Amino acid sequence: MRIALAQINSIIGDFEGNLANMLRAVEQARVGGADLICFPELAVCGYPPQDFLEFPDFIRRCQASVDALCTVSADIAIVVGAPVLNPVVEGKDLFNAALFLAEGAVRHVHHKALLPTYDIFDEYRYFEPASSFGVVEWRGVRIALTVCEDIWNVGNENPLYTICPLDEMMPLSPDLIINLSASPFSWDQARARKEVLRANTRRYGLPMFYVNQVGAQTELIFDGGSLVMTPDGQVYEELPYFETSLRIFDLAPVSACSRGQGEQQADRIALIHDALVLGLRDYFGKLGLRQAILGLSGGIDSAVTAALAAAALGSESVTGLLLPSRYSSDHSVADARRLAENLGIRHHILPIEPGYRALLDMVEPFFENRPFDVTEENIQARIRGLSLMAFSNKLGLILLNTTNKSEMAVGYGTLYGDLCGGLSVIGDVYKTEVYELAAYINRNREIIPANTIRKPPSAELRPDQKDSDSLPEYAELDAVLQGYIEERLGPRELIARGHEEALVRRVLRLVNTNEFKRHQTAPVLRVSPKAFGMGRRIPIVARYLG
Amino acid sequence: MRIALAQINSIIGDFEGNLANMLRAVEQARVGGADLICFPELAVCGYPPQDFLEFPDFIRRCQASVDALCTVSADIAIVVGAPVLNPVVEGKDLFNAALFLAEGAVRHVHHKALLPTYDIFDEYRYFEPASSFGVVEWRGVRIALTVCEDIWNVGNENPLYTICPLDEMMPLSPDLIINLSASPFSWDQARARKEVLRANTRRYGLPMFYVNQVGAQTELIFDGGSLVMTPDGQVYEELPYFETSLRIFDLAPVSACSRGQGEQQADRIALIHDALVLGLRDYFGKLGLRQAILGLSGGIDSAVTAALAAAALGSESVTGLLLPSRYSSDHSVADARRLAENLGIRHHILPIEPGYRALLDMVEPFFENRPFDVTEENIQARIRGLSLMAFSNKLGLILLNTTNKSEMAVGYGTLYGDLCGGLSVIGDVYKTEVYELAAYINRNREIIPANTIRKPPSAELRPDQKDSDSLPEYAELDAVLQGYIEERLGPRELIARGHEEALVRRVLRLVNTNEFKRHQTAPVLRVSPKAFGMGRRIPIVARYLG
Repeated sequence: MRIALAQINSIIGDFEGNLANMLRAVEQARVGGADLICFPELAVCGYPPQDFLEFPDFIRRCQASVDALCTVSADIAIVVGAPVLNPVVEGKDLFNAALFLAEGAVRHVHHKALLPTYDIFDEYRYFEPASSFGVVEWRGVRIALTVCEDIWNVGNENPLYTICPLDEMMPLSPDLIINLSASPFSWDQARARKEVLRANTRRYGLPMFYVNQVGAQTELIFDGGSLVMTPDGQVYEELPYFETSLRIFDLAPVSACSRGQGEQQADRIALIHDALVLGLRDYFGKLGLRQAILGLSGGIDSAVTAALAAAALGSESVTGLLLPSRYSSDHSVADARRLAENLGIRHHILPIEPGYRALLDMVEPFFENRPFDVTEENIQARIRGLSLMAFSNKLGLILLNTTNKSEMAVGYGTLYGDLCGGLSVIGDVYKTEVYELAAYINRNREIIPANTIRKPPSAELRPDQKDSDSLPEYAELDAVLQGYIEERLGPRELIARGHEEALVRRVLRLVNTNEFKRHQTAPVLRVSPKAFGMGRRIPIVARYLG
Repeated sequence: MRIALAQINSIIGDFEGNLANMLRAVEQARVGGADLICFPELAVCGYPPQDFLEFPDFIRRCQASVDALCTVSADIAIVVGAPVLNPVVEGKDLFNAALFLAEGAVRHVHHKALLPTYDIFDEYRYFEPASSFGVVEWRGVRIALTVCEDIWNVGNENPLYTICPLDEMMPLSPDLIINLSASPFSWDQARARKEVLRANTRRYGLPMFYVNQVGAQTELIFDGGSLVMTPDGQVYEELPYFETSLRIFDLAPVSACSRGQGEQQADRIALIHDALVLGLRDYFGKLGLRQAILGLSGGIDSAVTAALAAAALGSESVTGLLLPSRYSSDHSVADARRLAENLGIRHHILPIEPGYRALLDMVEPFFENRPFDVTEENIQARIRGLSLMAFSNKLGLILLNTTNKSEMAVGYGTLYGDLCGGLSVIGDVYKTEVYELAAYINRNREIIPANTIRKPPSAELRPDQKDSDSLPEYAELDAVLQGYIEERLGPRELIARGHEEALVRRVLRLVNTNEFKRHQTAPVLRVSPKAFGMGRRIPIVARYLG
């Protein structure tokens, strides 16, 4: 038996495109002599389709894709993920299914039993869990089908669930396990995934063929890294991260615990870098967009964002706009220009003084000589946002947001100003990690100017301003933020870790009272286990730690 | 037995404030001779607490409030909603519980069994459903406790669920049913609620005491309307909508199917009006804000929004800013000024020409004489947004967004321009309904000028522009939008309703391709069964009907 894993990149709702991709892969697998080809979870429509699942028209189109795949399954079996209707009135209307197609028909259907409903997952919103389990036999081999989370409760040790689907299937004596996944990237996910597969293969003494979606879907990035694992828990082969791939495997050596190519090496910062590049590339590619613009301040956030954009889209597709104000230092323009030259991206210099002056003159008569405050700072940031959006509108460029996770957390940014943009590229990267990314980007030669990395961070919205005037040092700030956001620690636990009480209370208050800003910002590319966005839902109107 | 219903307005996470409210209510009920007082679902922390439920610190504080309530339960029983820890390792960490406190201790705990996970509800994200059921006896009366959705599967007729909690309790022969709810308003909800209560009381032949949360929680508005219903399905009494209330009832006449005051009358547009007023008032009040500002264009959307704001906050707390451009007609300023005078609100006139001119001069050199297009229109809208935000920052005024649901749906609005604002007041009100609201606001005297109602809608961003130049007439547009958004109809079904195919495809494409704008707009006060916001989750990157 030869099994193909097709690590494809579906576009949500692009039924024609997704089907064409799958038909090409089926043909390639057939030519390669495969008996069976596996596609990811919900591959016909892309994952996550969210509330499109509530539209009967959308489900009909999923069914039509399954029908079309059936017609090419005469001499090769196809395992594909699709939503299917629940014929029983009671319970949710849909199942999240793995369909086994062969000889022109649906031969077996497995319904996903474990429906993740936490962080970025909402599956219980749409799907009914499986109530029965089977295996399917194909060319003399008995196969246990599972969908993503189904294998994440090994021996019922995951406290979230009360059933272990593979335990239910084992009495039927399968010869191998197939898992169709759409498992989003975070920097530790590939390691966690291998641990779970290892626990499964060892528990059951069976080989596992695991196929994951690749590609970005708005804020979620799917890294691929599909796996073949031997019954003794060794990685036989791992498909590449962050690109589509199709590979065909003989079952026999895998079942026999032979050694294959093994797993690939992965450095945390390199993974984050590559994930962000894919996130950018797919956001543009899947929306049919080509050109990006961003403001270059001479600081490290915009420099890293520009480098990522140039890597994703090509330097010819990125425009940097330098928007100096009366408070900008000389090095701001010099550093930004040098960055643009290093990257080979187009750049323009647009001093904002005329717009700033005009707006001040417009509004000041109403303000009765009140002193300079955040109003004037914000006007500068908003004139910049407005200028960037004018370029965006007139020239068809998509504005990239350059805010990092630390700033996003504490609300250090101007709504409708530097928080503008269609996509937040580094909004899930803490400031201290932005420096690590910069070092990684500069690993072969200077791309981000040394002075950009060396100088103290500043918004330059008033004379001699530094971030550290109003924020704790980033090393400590990030530690508190990480504890609160990723680990959900309260004030008591954070203070017990050695952080000063006043600082803890101030940081938590900043995070909670700035929820309104995050509500109105661009989608954030997710690279951590807890990103701002669909996976973190906090009320705006609240008085908790506020 | 005398039973008090305490329709309170909790603030999410305000443990001290919520507890103080409840202690006052307990004292009032005790003085009124009540044997028992009922508070809404999750009253200790407010509903919906969302991901705060994942913080152990938050759950500890909920427990502390329950402990404090226990201490005052010596001679009056207290039924209160709170999250409680699940002592079993398997399953979610929490239950959504109704706690029965009496004689200083927790006497009985009911876990919610039906966990809504659709639209704005995410309860399966946090809670484990009940696995056993009981009743509690107090002063000789046997009580069946339920939480909100628990009563929404009468006789297992709701296809979403496979269990009917009250069916499980009936063998224990309760004498009455208590339901603690946090059931958000939409314009048809009070009717639906009474139908469900009626079906329950008739099925079991028992009286029902139903207490609902009141008050707005960011986008969700809870209307109160707590109910006492007789065993024959008559409304014995209905507590007021949109305000806090505490009433004490003798059980005997209710059980005996006597007639009480009955239900209140409710007109759809009046309900929407009052809901929006409460939504505004609580957004400000709960965040400690006092003053609002909005742009007045002379059009109907900003006029209705201003009238709602004046009703909610008082006319002395609302500032209207008139921001005419070179394309504004004379009647724009005249109509807006007349509105401000009718409402008695402060207003200022700030022509935007100097800022518009300065920005054009800044960016045009880069645009190589390209013709006037949406860029210049957006610059105007953004200069307005920037000016309003300057007033907001300098004077501490919160900017109200004035976009209606029809515009929000098709993306007829400028991001960072007229889509600015801390709260979207009428973003769940279709344009055709905005006219109905205007008529309701004018029911006693002219508040919204007749000319504002009469003239054709226009954004006035270029000479002689009208909405109908680029959009279908609102009556037809709203019908298509309602079918797509509320009813989830596809193109086929909408065309079958008699809408022209080209128009249907164009409107659906506009809705789907403008998801990116809605992602960045303010929270929308929800008054319909399907509002833009937390209850409608659509991918930005997708090609479905796009």
